[in-house]
Amino acid sequence: MLNLREKHLLERIDAKLAEYLPEEDIIQADLIQAMRYSLLGEGKRIRPILVLEFCRLCGGEENAALPFACAVEMIHTYSLIHDDLPCMDNDDMRRGRPSNHKVFGEDTALLAGDALLTMAFEVMLSEEAVRLAGAGRAAKAAGYLARAAGAYGMVGGQVIDLMSEGRAISLETLKKMDENKTGALILASAQMGCALAGADNKQMQAAESYAKAIGLAFQIVDDILDVTGDTETLGKPVGSDNENQKSTYVSLMGLEDAAKAADELTVQAVEALSCFGEKADYLIEFAKKLAVRRK
Amino acid sequence: MLNLREKHLLERIDAKLAEYLPEEDIIQADLIQAMRYSLLGEGKRIRPILVLEFCRLCGGEENAALPFACAVEMIHTYSLIHDDLPCMDNDDMRRGRPSNHKVFGEDTALLAGDALLTMAFEVMLSEEAVRLAGAGRAAKAAGYLARAAGAYGMVGGQVIDLMSEGRAISLETLKKMDENKTGALILASAQMGCALAGADNKQMQAAESYAKAIGLAFQIVDDILDVTGDTETLGKPVGSDNENQKSTYVSLMGLEDAAKAADELTVQAVEALSCFGEKADYLIEFAKKLAVRRK
Repeated sequence: MLNLREKHLLERIDAKLAEYLPEEDIIQADLIQAMRYSLLGEGKRIRPILVLEFCRLCGGEENAALPFACAVEMIHTYSLIHDDLPCMDNDDMRRGRPSNHKVFGEDTALLAGDALLTMAFEVMLSEEAVRLAGAGRAAKAAGYLARAAGAYGMVGGQVIDLMSEGRAISLETLKKMDENKTGALILASAQMGCALAGADNKQMQAAESYAKAIGLAFQIVDDILDVTGDTETLGKPVGSDNENQKSTYVSLMGLEDAAKAADELTVQAVEALSCFGEKADYLIEFAKKLAVRRK
Repeated sequence: MLNLREKHLLERIDAKLAEYLPEEDIIQADLIQAMRYSLLGEGKRIRPILVLEFCRLCGGEENAALPFACAVEMIHTYSLIHDDLPCMDNDDMRRGRPSNHKVFGEDTALLAGDALLTMAFEVMLSEEAVRLAGAGRAAKAAGYLARAAGAYGMVGGQVIDLMSEGRAISLETLKKMDENKTGALILASAQMGCALAGADNKQMQAAESYAKAIGLAFQIVDDILDVTGDTETLGKPVGSDNENQKSTYVSLMGLEDAAKAADELTVQAVEALSCFGEKADYLIEFAKKLAVRRK
């Protein structure tokens, strides 16, 4: 039953994303190919699922939320392309494939990122999206995403990351960085779903609590996986020799306390959804799945 | 009188842009500094002036148009920052000052561009902007800008430019490139001003004709200035030895025909505004000033 729901959501998201970027015989075909390469590749679609599910929980229409779900994925994807560029993290691989600039060149990758960021707003502000959602709700939802993606959200988090490179940071700074770099987009996804459904304050607050909790839990679990993964594959002792002395939840809290914190956040996330009753079963499962990746 | 109008517009635009990017003692202060460096520097503010003036011509409120005017300038500025990056045009100088990445580093310049692009939508979709313009008009105006800036607009034009590097292109391709790379944003500025004022079809079409004509005239005059400037400063004969054999309106049409085309486009632009009567005096002067830069 829950797997069916996930299958349905992923199919709708992937089909709509592909629809927004048709393969055409046009003069900018290279750019579109580069955008498709990163956007239509493998992806867990965590953010679009949150948009669609919170919209449904608050009584909204899936069709009205779909363009906004796609928009968040476009923003997430552009950030990965720009992150991988030589002047940033200089990563040659992403999700088991060569990163965008390794395939299309740095110039096209830069522009593909710019175009995906812009396209997020094109699809949210398209006549179709505004008609389905209503102009007021569309503007509100797009506004949440814009603020979460910008200088005081995701991009701001990137800057904190740049500044922290190669030196130890406090747990407080690490949380602040993640809250911006990855948390803001996850929070906005939940807020957008609610806004598109015309949710009341209680529903919005429940969604925000859930999103904040899973956003942080996700990062902690990632750090745990990095360490336990290292141990398995490279035989390193847990917690030692993190790359570039990068501060992580595991290095700052210890493996055990990090695991405990992730568990507690997952419980918080599940509890936040109590006001939605059984309708929230899928999102409850979703939070638990993010947390048990380490087991 | 017309100078007073220009002074008023520039003051309002510059004050609002500075308001959107306050100097603060925050963790992302470097990013904000980089954004301010390029956004608040010298700029002719052509695009924001078009937004404000067409809004006024169609009976709209200047306060409602101001966030949208600022948004176009943010998009224009981000495109210059990304254009100057080493993986693109690799320009060390911009408007007589070191380019953004020479001052702040490539990583911060990339992020400052991303953040300015995003901030354009933050300000158009802010509660204040939506309240002043109304959600329907705000969404419509922001939609014009999103489409003009994206894969099928400005970024698409950049890609054509990349592909044309170092080889001769046809007049048709050059026009297509400029129509996307610079024309789209100028056209969108006029459309946004009209949309924010709830303009009728006739007004919108007049604005579009004007914007298309001055957009192309501006490019032609730029090419003319490049050649006549070279002649004056470097003593090169007109039309010879263009950098990298880059095709320009002058190289493809000859200096005389290019000048004639710019004049004709300016006449077209002025005629397009006849339906607005005397109220259009400033925009008429504006079109003429863009064209006489070469004299």
